[in-house]
Amino acid sequence: MRVKLKQPVLQGNDAAARTNRALFERHRLPVLNLISSPGAGKTTFLERWLAETDLQVGVIEGDLATTLDAERIAACGAEVVQINTHGACHLDATMIARALDHFALERLDLLVIENVGNLVCPAEFDLGESLRITLLSLTEGDDKPAKYPTSFRWADAVLLTKVDLLPYLRCDLERLSGSIQALNPGVPILYVAAQTGEGMTEWNDWLRRRLSAEGSR
Amino acid sequence: MRVKLKQPVLQGNDAAARTNRALFERHRLPVLNLISSPGAGKTTFLERWLAETDLQVGVIEGDLATTLDAERIAACGAEVVQINTHGACHLDATMIARALDHFALERLDLLVIENVGNLVCPAEFDLGESLRITLLSLTEGDDKPAKYPTSFRWADAVLLTKVDLLPYLRCDLERLSGSIQALNPGVPILYVAAQTGEGMTEWNDWLRRRLSAEGSR
Repeated sequence: MRVKLKQPVLQGNDAAARTNRALFERHRLPVLNLISSPGAGKTTFLERWLAETDLQVGVIEGDLATTLDAERIAACGAEVVQINTHGACHLDATMIARALDHFALERLDLLVIENVGNLVCPAEFDLGESLRITLLSLTEGDDKPAKYPTSFRWADAVLLTKVDLLPYLRCDLERLSGSIQALNPGVPILYVAAQTGEGMTEWNDWLRRRLSAEGSR
Repeated sequence: MRVKLKQPVLQGNDAAARTNRALFERHRLPVLNLISSPGAGKTTFLERWLAETDLQVGVIEGDLATTLDAERIAACGAEVVQINTHGACHLDATMIARALDHFALERLDLLVIENVGNLVCPAEFDLGESLRITLLSLTEGDDKPAKYPTSFRWADAVLLTKVDLLPYLRCDLERLSGSIQALNPGVPILYVAAQTGEGMTEWNDWLRRRLSAEGSR
């Protein structure tokens, strides 16, 4: 028996993503989908950002197990909903639709979805987001975009994280940024270190410009 | 339409894994399955180990794209076969069976399978290996075993990598090892740094003891 299933599953997801996107547009609510490997620093980046921003941000946390990340985000004062996938390797648009019931969307300026830590599967699933942000830690190595191309090809921006560790790593930034640009020509690449705050101003500036460009279209 | 498929896919894989395992046992060939996130250092660890060992090691490299890792391993003088999964998030037992055709198994002392970098999906797929080794880089954070339990629950050993970076990280080793032991009581935890060579002797000693215990059963 041969099981062909990827297309039907993705088509079902795309329909749910379209419904989510229409809802977000009705509320004029920008939505970010954060994708990375485990431990690239998505939650730490979010903590730093939430402490600095004056936007009303809602957060959906995706994890296989535990509510550790949601607890950290709630401690920052953001509204947060945890999705436990019970082993599933990505969030899908239907999971997001169910989580949305827990938010008063009209009160939010921005919704952030922190996907399951996985540089492969989440990239295949449109959640209805406005912007897809792929994060990669410098500790993962400069060969990773070429080896995991999908997560980089469709990103609206790439955040290179933990740049404060660069002096202790063998990581060629030119090779790294070159391989991202080869997959996704012109994509903005931002360098951040959530623990020191490096690059957070550039991130906030980029996001505000991008959201105001989206809003005026 | 609801698609139920995980069980049939896994059952098909389990049958292929049993065939692989029988073949390995006929050749008295121990097989390691290395599982980790992208960038945890599987390939760098392998390079260091291959440079030091006098065993005849064959290597199967799993990647979504590129032959970068296979080229690095071939440069160490090992026999290597690259499997490109073309987007699939894990190796399965049938892919391994096909790759085995390229090895003279009777000439090998050990076969190492470097799985796709993904801390979620590979753990679900038995490849027929004798030992499953999960690697986690200290840079990924001490909360990862609890958040990605499957990869740790069924490991025969856990290698904590990049321990040379510990002084620059917020990583609580007691919390980390405690959460691994909670998932998998008694599992050996080894601390390595492939770039400095730290822990490689302990790894080699552990592996030899474990393989000779397996062989004498």
